[in-house]
Amino acid sequence: MSGKLVLIGCGPGGVDLLTIRAARKIAEADLVLYDRLVDPDVVALAGSGAECRYVGKGCSDGGIQQADINAYLRSALLAGRVVARLKSGDPMVFGRAAEEIAVAVEIGAEVEIVPGVTAALAAASDALITVTERAELQSFVMTTGRAADSDAQPDWANVVKPGVCAAFYMGVAQAWRIQSVLMGAGVPGNAPADWVEKAGQTDMRTIPTRLDRLALDARANNVTNPAILLVRYPLSLAEARGVPAPSLQRAL
Amino acid sequence: MSGKLVLIGCGPGGVDLLTIRAARKIAEADLVLYDRLVDPDVVALAGSGAECRYVGKGCSDGGIQQADINAYLRSALLAGRVVARLKSGDPMVFGRAAEEIAVAVEIGAEVEIVPGVTAALAAASDALITVTERAELQSFVMTTGRAADSDAQPDWANVVKPGVCAAFYMGVAQAWRIQSVLMGAGVPGNAPADWVEKAGQTDMRTIPTRLDRLALDARANNVTNPAILLVRYPLSLAEARGVPAPSLQRAL
Repeated sequence: MSGKLVLIGCGPGGVDLLTIRAARKIAEADLVLYDRLVDPDVVALAGSGAECRYVGKGCSDGGIQQADINAYLRSALLAGRVVARLKSGDPMVFGRAAEEIAVAVEIGAEVEIVPGVTAALAAASDALITVTERAELQSFVMTTGRAADSDAQPDWANVVKPGVCAAFYMGVAQAWRIQSVLMGAGVPGNAPADWVEKAGQTDMRTIPTRLDRLALDARANNVTNPAILLVRYPLSLAEARGVPAPSLQRAL
Repeated sequence: MSGKLVLIGCGPGGVDLLTIRAARKIAEADLVLYDRLVDPDVVALAGSGAECRYVGKGCSDGGIQQADINAYLRSALLAGRVVARLKSGDPMVFGRAAEEIAVAVEIGAEVEIVPGVTAALAAASDALITVTERAELQSFVMTTGRAADSDAQPDWANVVKPGVCAAFYMGVAQAWRIQSVLMGAGVPGNAPADWVEKAGQTDMRTIPTRLDRLALDARANNVTNPAILLVRYPLSLAEARGVPAPSLQRAL
């Protein structure tokens, strides 16, 4: 009899941005798998009989690779255990959840996903930025500033259009590239941008900037990951620049 | 002396998707303002001495208009009260938070925002859909299927590009229009789509479909708001169709 995989979004850090459901599911698990992005206070919510196992990954911390996590998860589920897999933020956003769900589905284990507060929205709250706004920002895009070498880079210019607020996860190292790709695609240099470091945590920091200064300001302020970059391209800014925005044309 | 505005994201419904921080802030408030999208069990977390006031809005329920909410909020803040303004989902996403923040800022009242689980991500969890996926889905877009008559419609075709998963809030009435605009812009009819009704709640319902059937399937299954529509346009689908995707060209 197969166990159960509960993928749990733990929010961007700081135990109080955990949902009540997430806290309950952590307490009910036999086995809790966590990595370095999850707050130790969150892991401490595990029941006294539960096993908590660190599966931090990434070349920089000498941790376990995804394939090893998948293999370990598989054996735990085959042993009938209820596995809480803790993910920072929301598990379905940049969390590589698909691979772990596939492991469970393949062996017929039950799967439950507990959504969480994603870092981009915690960043917006911290910086007092509404990511949608009537008649100005109609869509909100989450994308990543970091892609594995083997992957295609996200096509940032293709999604940052008039009427869009975009959040870049882990964008510090690519700051200059984000700035130049977007400006090259016609996004105005005075588009408002904000860095938010450690969103949702008590020691978070916000650095307001603009598109044509965001790389400079990241360096000047020594912004480090985990950080979210918010870039806003309001409709009125496109209009003021005479940008041919299909969304404006269609609405008139 | 001015009071404090605490804008609180309450998640998509169901008290257990509230964050621990949100529950604490509700309990600490003097005055709790809520509308019809907020679960009564969430409102019940208010302290025994607090005043709870319904400010449900919208033409259909005979509720209060935004201008009236703003005026009431202003007077409460001027009276020095700590006001918890409850919003469903996350307050910065389609919550008209900007207007209420402006009221507080104008009179020098303190503002705090508590992020929440947004409905689109609760929907993704319910439907077991990873909204980002390595080498397939690199960006996640939240947009709205509903715009005030006076506003420009979101330019859906402009943001649903190869490598994008898009979530449409409140899209039921515009289902046919979303389908035809996206197909007209070249998104393949076999792009996977899913309706999620009452995301995050115990009586949620998921209806898997595809772009060229989503309006039909919404009607056949009597999907009603609050509902989220998820549409995925994976890179491999664009590649299979020979769509000239700038993101693919750039990566090669």
